[in-house]
Amino acid sequence: MAIQTPLVGIVMGSASDQPKMQAAEIILDRFGVPYESNVISAHRQPEQAHEYSKLAEERGLEVIIAAAGRAAHLAGVMAANTILPVIGVPVHGGHLGGADSLYSTVQMPSGVPVATVGIDQATNAAILAVQIIACHNPELREKLRSFKQELSQGLKV
Amino acid sequence: MAIQTPLVGIVMGSASDQPKMQAAEIILDRFGVPYESNVISAHRQPEQAHEYSKLAEERGLEVIIAAAGRAAHLAGVMAANTILPVIGVPVHGGHLGGADSLYSTVQMPSGVPVATVGIDQATNAAILAVQIIACHNPELREKLRSFKQELSQGLKV
Amino acid sequence: MAIQTPLVGIVMGSASDQPKMQAAEIILDRFGVPYESNVISAHRQPEQAHEYSKLAEERGLEVIIAAAGRAAHLAGVMAANTILPVIGVPVHGGHLGGADSLYSTVQMPSGVPVATVGIDQATNAAILAVQIIACHNPELREKLRSFKQELSQGLKV
Amino acid sequence: MAIQTPLVGIVMGSASDQPKMQAAEIILDRFGVPYESNVISAHRQPEQAHEYSKLAEERGLEVIIAAAGRAAHLAGVMAANTILPVIGVPVHGGHLGGADSLYSTVQMPSGVPVATVGIDQATNAAILAVQIIACHNPELREKLRSFKQELSQGLKV
Amino acid sequence: MAIQTPLVGIVMGSASDQPKMQAAEIILDRFGVPYESNVISAHRQPEQAHEYSKLAEERGLEVIIAAAGRAAHLAGVMAANTILPVIGVPVHGGHLGGADSLYSTVQMPSGVPVATVGIDQATNAAILAVQIIACHNPELREKLRSFKQELSQGLKV
Amino acid sequence: MAIQTPLVGIVMGSASDQPKMQAAEIILDRFGVPYESNVISAHRQPEQAHEYSKLAEERGLEVIIAAAGRAAHLAGVMAANTILPVIGVPVHGGHLGGADSLYSTVQMPSGVPVATVGIDQATNAAILAVQIIACHNPELREKLRSFKQELSQGLKV
Amino acid sequence: MAIQTPLVGIVMGSASDQPKMQAAEIILDRFGVPYESNVISAHRQPEQAHEYSKLAEERGLEVIIAAAGRAAHLAGVMAANTILPVIGVPVHGGHLGGADSLYSTVQMPSGVPVATVGIDQATNAAILAVQIIACHNPELREKLRSFKQELSQGLKV
Amino acid sequence: MAIQTPLVGIVMGSASDQPKMQAAEIILDRFGVPYESNVISAHRQPEQAHEYSKLAEERGLEVIIAAAGRAAHLAGVMAANTILPVIGVPVHGGHLGGADSLYSTVQMPSGVPVATVGIDQATNAAILAVQIIACHNPELREKLRSFKQELSQGLKV
Repeated sequence: MAIQTPLVGIVMGSASDQPKMQAAEIILDRFGVPYESNVISAHRQPEQAHEYSKLAEERGLEVIIAAAGRAAHLAGVMAANTILPVIGVPVHGGHLGGADSLYSTVQMPSGVPVATVGIDQATNAAILAVQIIACHNPELREKLRSFKQELSQGLKV
Repeated sequence: MAIQTPLVGIVMGSASDQPKMQAAEIILDRFGVPYESNVISAHRQPEQAHEYSKLAEERGLEVIIAAAGRAAHLAGVMAANTILPVIGVPVHGGHLGGADSLYSTVQMPSGVPVATVGIDQATNAAILAVQIIACHNPELREKLRSFKQELSQGLKV
Repeated sequence: MAIQTPLVGIVMGSASDQPKMQAAEIILDRFGVPYESNVISAHRQPEQAHEYSKLAEERGLEVIIAAAGRAAHLAGVMAANTILPVIGVPVHGGHLGGADSLYSTVQMPSGVPVATVGIDQATNAAILAVQIIACHNPELREKLRSFKQELSQGLKV
Repeated sequence: MAIQTPLVGIVMGSASDQPKMQAAEIILDRFGVPYESNVISAHRQPEQAHEYSKLAEERGLEVIIAAAGRAAHLAGVMAANTILPVIGVPVHGGHLGGADSLYSTVQMPSGVPVATVGIDQATNAAILAVQIIACHNPELREKLRSFKQELSQGLKV
Repeated sequence: MAIQTPLVGIVMGSASDQPKMQAAEIILDRFGVPYESNVISAHRQPEQAHEYSKLAEERGLEVIIAAAGRAAHLAGVMAANTILPVIGVPVHGGHLGGADSLYSTVQMPSGVPVATVGIDQATNAAILAVQIIACHNPELREKLRSFKQELSQGLKV
Repeated sequence: MAIQTPLVGIVMGSASDQPKMQAAEIILDRFGVPYESNVISAHRQPEQAHEYSKLAEERGLEVIIAAAGRAAHLAGVMAANTILPVIGVPVHGGHLGGADSLYSTVQMPSGVPVATVGIDQATNAAILAVQIIACHNPELREKLRSFKQELSQGLKV
Repeated sequence: MAIQTPLVGIVMGSASDQPKMQAAEIILDRFGVPYESNVISAHRQPEQAHEYSKLAEERGLEVIIAAAGRAAHLAGVMAANTILPVIGVPVHGGHLGGADSLYSTVQMPSGVPVATVGIDQATNAAILAVQIIACHNPELREKLRSFKQELSQGLKV
Repeated sequence: MAIQTPLVGIVMGSASDQPKMQAAEIILDRFGVPYESNVISAHRQPEQAHEYSKLAEERGLEVIIAAAGRAAHLAGVMAANTILPVIGVPVHGGHLGGADSLYSTVQMPSGVPVATVGIDQATNAAILAVQIIACHNPELREKLRSFKQELSQGLKV
């Protein structure tokens, strides 16, 4: 993790999600986007989750990536307390084919969106974060163009 | 609503849930259990939801009934912040047959249970609340026995 | 199992559910709540299931936890015959992602609730049982507060 | 309903199922198979359900048709208490596309089968009952052959 | 397999279903009900399937058990061509949690029922077949009563 | 219907499917592809279904479109008895969101494909039939190119 | 539609999606974010879809919102051809509870994310677009804070 | 792969689909139908996918088989750009039981059909391709008749 101020805050509901979320870190490292990773459970650590999301903007984060399984409320809790874009990664928890995590993450009520990616798709969450941050960052846009070019030539991510 | 201190706190994620939740109020009235009803969205009003659940116990509530649709996080938010039993009512929001609300309510992570009843089952949420409160209340237990007797004789609820 | 009169009656539909249900026993032991565990199939031993649920209240039980898989009727049979709160644990039986057990447990008709927890969530069933029993038990409430505190500090259950 | 001893016992979980179950009565009338119809809820009237199924055989019934919705336990309760073949009709209760009723009816544990027909398929339940009774009844078999012939010529049921 | 005329005809869509269907043979052997077993694919061997079902009655069969996976048409093809009761066993083919086999077997159109048992439930298919044959067979009924008694005492099937 | 020998045989499981299947006839008329339409139930009229599919090739048909609902076996029965390409239209029968028809049509076993289109997609079934017939018909290919051009300009089908 | 260069490009697969997508336009108007709306079908107008997405960045768009139903590929086609963040709105097309649109939109392969919002959630798509554009726009961030405040006070969107 | 001009173009979204798609090649080899196989991702290589489908007809291909998983757009992209029949193979990507791939492939909008086969059914895709090409090829029809005969005698494919 770089010593720069993190722009992306990765949070996950359980330490057991860490192996899956490393795929996001690999992408952010590749694009040189500073980030931080924390395990915060929306249900077991509601105060921390509440605080994290409320302070995210003033701490300089530009995007939050929240990963959780089953009744996956973490992304929703983040989105409730910040105006930053929140990306949700539904983690497959072993039942219902992963539909529980997906529905809990994506079916948010009007007013509070979560930008949901595919089940266990930490990689795509990170690319989406980069795309968002690249909005006013020509250098990052250029890197995204190169990345897209490499994908078309067979790069595996 | 009685002037007694409420023992059951009904919260619902949207004012549009009120017609469905009146079925719970009818049951609680029938059993003479004092309650209060509030519309609090876990996502649009996270502070209020946070506060409500944290103060519930000291305000004298004994059970919380939380009803919400789609990515139904309200019951989970309540359960995260209180040691009171929280009953979740998944409200059918119009898509996925109601599976989204059900999965979001019931599939809670280890450590933070939500006592989930059937989709749109406000009636059963209230009966369950009465059963819980009746634990050390012989009079309420007697009423529950009569109620069960009436059910067996064809009473519609 | 303590020599005290059990307050929680754990029943499960098959001996094969026992390894999963030990998680409930660990929680009840932790909180010092006396319990008993029995294998009773709603379908293969209907008389026993019928009797168990009818006698539960007078035997001093305060909560029943019923775990079963597939067409999981055990919790419903219990709830039909007692005014005690019945907690249902849908056990994943290998097909349909566990939706069969979940739907069979949670979608109870008006008048007869089952407090359903997540698929295979014996731990949460037990915590919910403790929360219910704690209603008029300040000592147990205090233990629940400590438990919640420990959860927020990373305790795994 | 004929004055003959009924051979088929139709039970349904709610009076609201009666319009759907009339389709079964029409078929049984057509084949001249005597039957009886009763509303018995497995959950609201467990004693009656228990008694009905235990006495079915000695009362001369040869087949039971049980219809119920949502967490549809009625057929399972019948099957638990009798050695007669039990036909289950999953009734669509308005949620989950009817999957809740279907799974609750068909996914019975080893040892206790329920002969499940399609969702809301009272007609097929009755035809299946006739097929079972026809096992040693040449006249009924002949009627079934004629019926099949009529079906192939466009008869609507 | 006994040298008696078979009363139950077991057909399965693929030789790969044989290990699962042995559970049905064990039950029929236990009850002394003569049977035969054949692999006939409704789709790869439509002539044989057609013939088998059309000749079943005159060959003396009283019940057909048909097991198939995925788009499981075998039971339906049987039911289309015979007035005998046809029991369908949906075999889990590896996708969709087994819902494909279940829906294909159970959701039959009006006029042509299939008595569907649970996914992979060969055991229950055989018990149901015995229950049907027992209709006018006091000895078999007695065996079923004993079997039910043994089940209630913990017999595993 | 033209007096030319039909190239496409439309079969549907129930007369109630006719309104939906008219969309296929409109497409075939537009492309000048002669066709015939018949109501044949795989389950109520197995002989006719059997015969139709066995004679289809020698009668000059080049493609079969089979539409059916619920346990939708009609396309599978056709495919079992002919080497012609068979297009399956899963018809939504009112339950399970249409998943029953879809799974019953598409999940065919190895060796016997059904070319499945979307639920209730009679239009696409007909276009696919034209695409298949156009394989060696330059005039029809030209019409398909024009049709695709019109679609891109906003033509509604 | 403002005369400013649009920052958000709304595309939808069918003119029939327009009523639902007006909810997005209302939000963008409220925040003063210029946008454009076009009906482009990924399947009927692949050239236009291809061109639109390839030119989006150089035309000055910062975010694309793509709405489509059933096999909803429009958002995926957009995401394949641009480095801009693409927000997908799964439109309920009448079958499968909307699961078809949702799965087609969200389950993107590694390398090409679509930021998916809830079924028919045009409102949330627009809010998410504003959140993304606000990344380096303090005025827009301030408006988002006010909006969040209004939501918490009961504003309906 | 033969040196003849390929008639069938197999495309798959990922190199990881190759082991599954070899089953299609085995069938095409058996029938002597020349083919080519390419890995082209609709999302990572949209230009190639676009080009491939637009040139398919003039390159002499008669049928395209497209296999992809999750949000499986490859077959749809092919179908959007060619008048050739396109066969879609939904590949199970590990979540949701394969329903994501199936729905994304089959639920195409009016005007642009994809001939969908079962999940992971590369074998059936190839047989369907042969059936289509055989339309005006008596020799290939004869081979299909022999193949069907062999299937009925137990040939495994």
